[in-house]
This record gives sequence, C-alpha cells and structure tokens, in this order.
Amino acid sequence: MNPDIIRERQNATFDVETLTNILDLGPEKTKRRREIESLVLSDPDFNEKDPNFLARSERYDQAVRKSAAMILKLREYGISDPEEILFYKRLAKGHHPEALALHFVMFLPTLYAQCDPKQSRKWLPLAESFQVLGTYAQTEMGHGTHLRGLETTATYDPATQEFVMNSPTVSSIKWWPGGLGKTSNHAVVLAQLFTQGICHGLHAFIVPIRDLDTHEPLPGITVGDIGPKFGFSEVDNGFLKLNHVRIPRENMLMKYAKVDLDGTYVKPPSDKLMYGTMVFIRSLIVGESARALAKSCTIAIRYSVVRHQSEIQPGEPEPQILDFQTQQDKLFPLLAMAYAFTFMGQYIRETYQRITGDISMGDFSEMPELHALSAGLKAFTTWAVSSAIEVCRMACGGHGYSRSSALPDIYVDITPNCTYEGENTVMMLQTARYLVKSYQQAKAGQRLSGTVSYLGEARQQRLQPQPMAAGQTVVDISDLASLVDVYKLRAMSLVELAANSIQEELGKRKSHAHAWNNSAIDLVRASDAHCHYVVVKVFTEKLGQISDPAIHSVLSTLAQLYALRGIKQNSGDFMLAGLLKGSQVLQISARIKELLSQLRPNAVALVDSFDFNDKSLNSVLGRYDGNVYENLFEWARKSPLNATEVHESFHKYLKPLRSKL
Amino acid sequence: MNPDIIRERQNATFDVETLTNILDLGPEKTKRRREIESLVLSDPDFNEKDPNFLARSERYDQAVRKSAAMILKLREYGISDPEEILFYKRLAKGHHPEALALHFVMFLPTLYAQCDPKQSRKWLPLAESFQVLGTYAQTEMGHGTHLRGLETTATYDPATQEFVMNSPTVSSIKWWPGGLGKTSNHAVVLAQLFTQGICHGLHAFIVPIRDLDTHEPLPGITVGDIGPKFGFSEVDNGFLKLNHVRIPRENMLMKYAKVDLDGTYVKPPSDKLMYGTMVFIRSLIVGESARALAKSCTIAIRYSVVRHQSEIQPGEPEPQILDFQTQQDKLFPLLAMAYAFTFMGQYIRETYQRITGDISMGDFSEMPELHALSAGLKAFTTWAVSSAIEVCRMACGGHGYSRSSALPDIYVDITPNCTYEGENTVMMLQTARYLVKSYQQAKAGQRLSGTVSYLGEARQQRLQPQPMAAGQTVVDISDLASLVDVYKLRAMSLVELAANSIQEELGKRKSHAHAWNNSAIDLVRASDAHCHYVVVKVFTEKLGQISDPAIHSVLSTLAQLYALRGIKQNSGDFMLAGLLKGSQVLQISARIKELLSQLRPNAVALVDSFDFNDKSLNSVLGRYDGNVYENLFEWARKSPLNATEVHESFHKYLKPLRSKL
Repeated sequence: MNPDIIRERQNATFDVETLTNILDLGPEKTKRRREIESLVLSDPDFNEKDPNFLARSERYDQAVRKSAAMILKLREYGISDPEEILFYKRLAKGHHPEALALHFVMFLPTLYAQCDPKQSRKWLPLAESFQVLGTYAQTEMGHGTHLRGLETTATYDPATQEFVMNSPTVSSIKWWPGGLGKTSNHAVVLAQLFTQGICHGLHAFIVPIRDLDTHEPLPGITVGDIGPKFGFSEVDNGFLKLNHVRIPRENMLMKYAKVDLDGTYVKPPSDKLMYGTMVFIRSLIVGESARALAKSCTIAIRYSVVRHQSEIQPGEPEPQILDFQTQQDKLFPLLAMAYAFTFMGQYIRETYQRITGDISMGDFSEMPELHALSAGLKAFTTWAVSSAIEVCRMACGGHGYSRSSALPDIYVDITPNCTYEGENTVMMLQTARYLVKSYQQAKAGQRLSGTVSYLGEARQQRLQPQPMAAGQTVVDISDLASLVDVYKLRAMSLVELAANSIQEELGKRKSHAHAWNNSAIDLVRASDAHCHYVVVKVFTEKLGQISDPAIHSVLSTLAQLYALRGIKQNSGDFMLAGLLKGSQVLQISARIKELLSQLRPNAVALVDSFDFNDKSLNSVLGRYDGNVYENLFEWARKSPLNATEVHESFHKYLKPLRSKL
Repeated sequence: MNPDIIRERQNATFDVETLTNILDLGPEKTKRRREIESLVLSDPDFNEKDPNFLARSERYDQAVRKSAAMILKLREYGISDPEEILFYKRLAKGHHPEALALHFVMFLPTLYAQCDPKQSRKWLPLAESFQVLGTYAQTEMGHGTHLRGLETTATYDPATQEFVMNSPTVSSIKWWPGGLGKTSNHAVVLAQLFTQGICHGLHAFIVPIRDLDTHEPLPGITVGDIGPKFGFSEVDNGFLKLNHVRIPRENMLMKYAKVDLDGTYVKPPSDKLMYGTMVFIRSLIVGESARALAKSCTIAIRYSVVRHQSEIQPGEPEPQILDFQTQQDKLFPLLAMAYAFTFMGQYIRETYQRITGDISMGDFSEMPELHALSAGLKAFTTWAVSSAIEVCRMACGGHGYSRSSALPDIYVDITPNCTYEGENTVMMLQTARYLVKSYQQAKAGQRLSGTVSYLGEARQQRLQPQPMAAGQTVVDISDLASLVDVYKLRAMSLVELAANSIQEELGKRKSHAHAWNNSAIDLVRASDAHCHYVVVKVFTEKLGQISDPAIHSVLSTLAQLYALRGIKQNSGDFMLAGLLKGSQVLQISARIKELLSQLRPNAVALVDSFDFNDKSLNSVLGRYDGNVYENLFEWARKSPLNATEVHESFHKYLKPLRSKL
C-alpha cells in the first residue's frame, strides 16, 4: 500500500463503511452487493484480456462470450432480482457495454408490454431461451428523436394476410440499434402502418432477420455493422435495409392496436401507453451518470494524492498534487456533484416507482411531472457528467490520456447518453414546455403540485428579493435552506423570462411555433435552472435523513460546495434576478475556498465510500492501494506493439529510406 | 450535389474565395497551398485505408509508411519551405499525427540548437539521412511539467571519459516521448548531470538506444510502447529505462554547458537559451487549435443544413436542423471562435517572429511578454477548442458519435494539447505571475508595454465604469471598440482581485508561496480574462485590415457574436465589476439572437471559406457535396465486422446457449 494513501485514510473524520451503507440504502444491501460481486471476482471466466489490447472483432467476441457466460451463471446461482442482476453485470462488464444489452433492455420488455396473449405464448419462450435474439429497431439513418419522421413502411396485404416491410429510401435504413449488426436474429421494427390505403402512424412489428439455424441474413434483408464509433466497440450497432420483406399479420404487436384479417385497423385505447419504458430508462440514466462520475472522481482523487509534482514552497519536496488549490477546485466540486447526482438518481427512481404505482391504479395526474422531471434531469446530468469526466481526465495530466487510466473508456461509454433515449436539447425543451405551461396555469390561478409548485407561489413572495438591490440582504450563503430558496427564485425568474420572450415574439405577429423557436435559448436555460434547483433541493433534503454527525457534517460541506459553485458559475443570473449583491458573490468565492480546504482531509475517504472494486474501476491510476507507477509499467509492457522488439515497419520502410536518399 | 447545400451557397452575401485569400494571408498563398495539396490528392500512394478500420499495429505501420513516403516525395518535388512542407503534410496526415513527428519537431531542432561544431559535423548528417532516427526524452513516468523534479541521472566517469546514464527508480523511467517505443534508434535524454560529486541540474545527452543495423535494443536499454491511448494510435509513445548505460563524453550536447575531460563543469552563459522552442510550439498550438475547430465547425454546419429533423411549424416538412435557434446557438458562437482563434494564431506567430527578431538583436525586453502570451493563449484556446469540438460532435446527433463523422478523431488528436507542452493550469498560472508582476510594477509607477499595458492605465480611468451602477451607461453593446474596452476593464478588475487576494493571504502571515497557492483560483480566472480580452482585441483590430465591404460586414457580425457571447457567459464578472447593468445583460441576450439570425444565410459560406479539402476532413457528415446518407451506407459496409455475414461468436457462444438452458 502506498504510504501517501494510507495517511489519507488515517486522516478521515468519518467512518467510510457507514457512508457506503447510506449510498447503498442500507447495510444489508451493501452486504448482498458484495456477496454478488465476489461471485464475479472469484470466477476465472471473468479474468479476460484487457479490451484495450484487443482489436474490435476480438472485443465483440469477448463481449458475446461474456454475455453468454453471464446468462448461464446467473441462472446457475439463481439470481433473478433485477437489482442483483445489475450488481453482477456491472462488475462483470466494467466500463464496457454488454453485447446482448438490447435483448434484455428493449426487446424482451417490448414483448412483455405489447404482445397479445397468443403472441406472448409464441414469442416469450423463444426469446427467453435465446433461440430468438432480438433488438429494437427504431431510429433510421435520417431520423432520430422525431419519431413521426420515420420512413420505414409496413403495408398490409389482405390477399396473403401479410405485412410488407420496406425501406423506401437510403435515409430510411434502420441505423444504430445495438446488437442489430451481427448478434440478433429478430428485430422489433418500428414502421408506418399502411392498411386499406391509409397511414395509421408508427407501430411495432416482429421481423425475423437471420436464419435461426445458420444465422445467415434472410432474403430481402441487408443487415450489418454500422462501423467503428467513439466507443461501444463491444457492440454491433447495426443497419437494416428491408426490401419488401413479408411477415405474417400476427407479427404486428397487437396488445393495443390491431389490424384484422381484412385489413381493418383497430385503434389503441390510448397513445400514451408506450411512454413508460422511455421514462424509466431516462431515470436510470441519471443514476448511471452519477456512477460514471463517481468512478472518475475516485480515479482522479486517488491519483492526486499519490502523484507528487511541482512545488508550492520552493526547496520543499514536491507536494501531492491534491494540495494545489486549482486541483481541489477542479475535483471537489465534481465530487460534490457525484454525491448530488447519486441522491438525485435515488430520488427519481423512487418517484418513478411511486408515480407508476399511481398510474397502475388509474391516476395519471403526475405523469406529466414525471416525464418533465426525467427528461430534464437526464439532459442536465449527462451534459454535466460528460464534461466532468473530461475534467477528471485532464486533472490526471498525461497519464489520464492513457487507456490505463480508464478515464477515456468511462467517457466514451457515458457520453452517448447525451444523445440517445432523447437528444438532450430536445429533452430540455420538453421540460421547458411543462414549465411554461405550469407557469401559465399558475398565473391563471390554478394550483400546482410537484417540483414545479414554486411557480405558483404568490407573486409578492417571488418579488421579495428585489429590495436587495438597495442593500438589504435576505440570502444567508452558509444556510442550505436559503440556498435552495435562491435557486428556486432564479429558476422562477428564468421561466418568467422565457415565457415573456414567447409573449414578445407573439406580439410581433409570429406564429406560436416560431415564437417558441425564437425563445428556445431562454427555454433551455429555464429548464437548466429548474433542474439545478431540484438537485440542490434533493441533496439538502437527503441531509435531513442522515443521523451520523460526522457524515452529516461532511455531506453538508459537499452540498454547500455544490450549491455555491453553481451560484458562482451562474452568478450573472442571480445578480440579474436581484437575488445576490456583488459583495455576496465575493463572499461566495471566499467561502468556496474554505470549503475546499475543509474537504481536503476527507477526499480519499469520500471516494472510498463509493466502494468501487478495483476490477470495476480497471484503472491503474485509481487503484485502491495507490501503487500506480509499478503497475503502469506492468500494464504498458503488455501492449501488443511490445510483442516483438522490432516492428516490421523498420525493415519495410525505415531502413530502405537510407539508401534511397 | 445535395440541393439544400446548393441553396445555402446561393444565399451567401459575400465571395468565398476572397475570404479564403484573407485567411491564407494572400491569394498567392491560396494558390500555392492548393498546388501543393494537389500533389497529395493526385498521388495514389496516399489512397490508404481508412485508419478507423485498422488495428493499432496496422495504423502505426501505415503511418510509418506514409512518413517515409513523404520524406522521399518532398525531396523529389524539391519542397523545402517549412510552410509548404506543412501544407503537404497536413493533407497527407489528415487528423492523425505523423509517426516520425518527434524526429522533425524536437530531435533535429535540438541538435541544430545545442550541438557544438564538432557534434554538428557528426550528428547532423546521420540524422538528416535518417540513419539516426531520434526523439526527445524529457518527461518521466513520475514527472511532467516540473522539470526540476526529473530523476534520470548522467554521472560523469573521468576514468573512461563516459557518462553513466541511469534510471534509478520506476518513476524515473522516461515515459510518453513520441516515436520512442519502436521507431527511434537514438534519443536526446534530459538528465541530472553529476560530475565531481556535484549535481549541476538538467542537461541533454544523445543516447543510442537501438542498433543501427538490426534495430534491436542495445544492452542496458529497456524500451517499448506505453500502450494504447485515447488517440494517437499512429504514434509509438514510448518508455525508456536506462540501466547504467555508458555513452561517450562527447554525447553531451555541449554548445553552451560543457564537461571537460577531467570532469570540470563549465556553466552555460545563460539558462534561458533553451526557452525558445517551447514558446514557438505553444504559439503554433494556438493556430492548430483554431484549425481543428474550423474543421469541426465545417462538419457540423454542413451536416446541419442537409439534416432535416423534427418540426418547428406542425404539419410542415421537417426543417433543416440549422434553423433551430438552439442549433445556431451551439454552432455559430463556435464558428465565431474559430475565426477569432485563427486571427489570434496569425497574430501570435507574427509576434513571435518580431520578438525573436529582437532577441537575436540582443533585445530581451519583450521575452516575458511573449512567454506569458504564448503560455496563456495556448491554455485558453486549447481548453475552449477541446470543449467546442465535443459540442460540434453532439450537435450532429448520433452520427457525430460514429467514426465516420471524423469528429472523434479531431477531438482525440487535439485534446492532448491541453496537457503537453505545458499543462494548461500551470500555463495559466505562469501568465498570471506576469500579470500580477506587471500590475505591481504599474502601481509602483513603472510604464508597461505590450498587451498588459492596460494594467498601467490611470486609476481614475479604471474606475470610470463605477457610476453606471447609478444608471449611467458607458458601454455601447453594438460597438466593438466599446466591447474591447469592457473586456479590458473586466481583466483589470480580475487581476486586481487576484492581487488583493494574495495581499490578504500575506496579511494572515502566510508565506508568499502559500498566499500564491491560496489565490490560485483567482489567478487562473485573471489569466483567462486577460486572454479573452486579447482575443477580442485582435479580432477587432483584424477587421480594420479588411476592405471588402461584404466580408467586413459578416466578420464584424462574427466578432460581435464572439464578444457578446463571452460577456453573456461571464455576465457575473462584468456586473460585479460595475461594467454592465442588468438591463444591458438582457439587451445582450436579445442582440445575440439577432446576430444568430443574421449569420444563418452565410453559415455554409463561412465554413467553405476555410477551404478544407474533403480528404483533409475525411468526414462523411462534412462532405462538400452534402451527400451524406449514401456515403454513410458505403462507409459502414466497409466495417471489418462486415467482412463475413456471420461472426464466429454466433457458433462459439450464442447457438450453444440454447442447449445449455
């Protein structure tokens, strides 16, 4: 064990195990998680090659092998609880996606949700026994978030009682679905349904794409891998071109909408029934983003206490780089963010469970709130985390750029979350639509509930901070409740600003659609402020549930840092809304410096509390024992370029150069 | 040609070729550049495989082949002007680094600068004929920017008149030098010189590391590749462990410092003589960052006019995504930044030439200014560009994440600039040191020159904006000169703030070193504001040289957008310094929207003006003809995973799964 990191752990002011239990939502959960993790750790089948040293086809191969192994082993161990499966897979997968992910997270859930009873009897046994391996083919080369734009057609032919599935243009080729290129033999294809000459919009169809036995593509099917990406080398994101492929009528998923034998279309009872999965995945993304950031902070902070560099006091030994204020200012706000987003992830999961419970009881009243919350927070957290991981990487200097740090892998694994499951800007605008609508309802005297209820607070109360401009102070920067309040008032002022912008544009005789587009910058900003408020609020409320005084203290410090750093970075908004005076902005800067110093002794303990196993981090820089340099050398020697002492290019190109000159 | 992109070009209000000439610094330069580029374009040897489809060893192989080919061809064509070589190499290399780069940019220049005449006669012919292939081995596994911390030793042994080169620890292993792993047979090694029992600090030594003939590592040498990185797959960044390797006394570079036969050390006349190369490279990086951003904007903007998605007006066809205000707000400020940094790159190169001219005439007075300017602007531009490229990538939706977009390649090629040639935070602090020193000199009554001269402007003038708080406005947001002024005043206020923070810390009886560290956040912020001011100023001054009215108009719009966006994003600073009222901040937001609309018709023409050949972009999304989708499909089909219809993993893992369950 590196002596620096030992000393860091001795200096901590709180008990790491207790905080781990809080993060896991109870000591029993911690225990069970570790039991499951030990199954992976003790299993020689998961001692695979570092994917960094493999070519893409080998990485895909290894990922498929692992997917198959996980299926068999989980069954063998009798692990079937979704959370426990997640514990197992997280450790087995590392930072890399699972080859069969789409079968589990999209194909099977779609079958469960949208098969009628007869279809369930046919398809579920096939899919659950992996004879049918499936994916979910929605996006097309030319069409993403805007589903109505999809071009693939499914035209019913009553003569044969078949649907003719077709990709009419190049831009209509299905593009991006995970597992579509090489792995899947079936796909749920989203297509515009035509019957009796009328288009009834998007519906889902089960399309066989490869022979069950030979795995060769079926007639009329052009299928393959879309090529290398920034990350996701393990996954065969694919394309699918359908050339008038005929499938039986029964392959349309018919739990809700139906097409009768003669081609008569039967409408679904509601078009909101397909909503749930997307909202669920978006709320999961919040937690996964938090996890990626927590890993990155663990790596960067552990490395920053074993790395010595430069000087503070001339003549003294090189200090640990975490002693530089600039390094603390890079990493501690991100550590605070990792905690904030972890609690936010827990909150949104609980909210999802509560509201879907209500929905299943027939109460749809909170569905818009849930949708707006998950859309906005998915965007807010993934954007923030994406940038934050790169800050962590750069905080590790050159070695952060090495694949041995794992930070590049964590980055490319998480950054697509900004785009998939709803492009972030589109998500922010959806949340903004809800905010503006709520604001207008409140103005019209309606009562609001949920996270937006502040938009209905009395106008007088909203305007309270205004007198501050004349010198009167209402914000106490060392009181979290007061900080939650200013975040709320800032969000309110930005929602108001966006709503006013729309009114102004309408006043210029613009259509509502153009008024909306011409206010889009303000609308995104308003959503961002709303999400920021919710995160600060949830973090603050979480503190109320923590009884251990030492942990309460250090988490309060983190919460204050998170809140104050956000104010500092957006100080213009707060000053513009009359919420802060210049002198307070200066006080906040000074206070942030104090908080950084306060956190310094607990930095390593705070990342240790996330309790990432070394295998899960797969980072030479982030090792628990801090023994970075020896292991960096070991790792490098395994580089494939070191398999021979002399690379063939010397003989082919370099040596001949001499004689040619 | 895609009809959308044709229409865009028809709508432009200025002549693209004229702007290209301005960017090239004259029509003759444009002509010559294109002549040289056509040599690459017409050369079948450069029709190589897309590196995205190659494994790392193949990428390295292809890059070495290309390096060797470029040497032969440039000689054949008789191209020897450094700028013309750059034109040639840029196009031949694409976004990927050159395998032999370090031989050209570090090894040879070090020999030219530090060999004594006898050494020159021996080494230059060997290195210029590529019998000796070299690199520059400075950084060690445990030591980067802080050179005094390097551990490698060179101990003189007068008995044999040799230096004993040694890596005493794991952390002292040379780490990161490009071309060190497999390519080079020699390295300039930076090591602590010991002679007669005394350490004389860092000196440079020529160390043979591989046999000239067999290329096998020499005795005592452990050398190899440091393993895969985030990018730079073409380059064998390497490690070098020296186990008491003996080299002749003559292998110490002796132009300045010397060790006599008996071990007597002779000091160099000045220790600043090794400074120049670093400053030169940092100023080049500013221009290269601008170029990477210009490429990224070209890709994202061209794609945004051929991509149709979503809706603005319900029922209407899907609009070009560049018509969304949010898309404009993402991309146009970055386009403005690309222009700003291009002009900044030109300015800093001219400044470098002017000041090094002075230095060669014995005038060292502007050296600190040059050093501070290049350090700060290297950090300012690379940080900004690094984030900006990712914004461009995400603005392309899912396809931005595909390697076919080229955006991931551009990103990983440019982001290490934030770390190498001086870690950015360290660079910002070096610039801050100069700013604070200048500020104190001005306070003590000294006259300042160069970009910091504003720090000496009369205190009264500095305080002029203060009355604004009482309602008086001095800033005209539509006047660029006025915007340069507020940037200047903001920088001044932040330098003052940082200097005051140091004073306060000193007042708490902190040592100067700790006072500095406890003010580091403010110091970095001050440097950032100074650099921002310089960029706005240089852009504004550039406009004065442009006579074509249409081009003057569109560049003025860009300059205003660059300046106002920066104010909006840092509005707290400007309000805090009393430079802007809240009402003006709102005006600025409204003005930014107007500028976005004004730029919309010229967006494609503004990126066309950068005149990147399609080969140089290597981006399916950024093609000049806008024919994205057909070519995306073509590209994907070449993915190595598509070489066979059925991947072996199906037979190995997936099919057997069925029977095992």
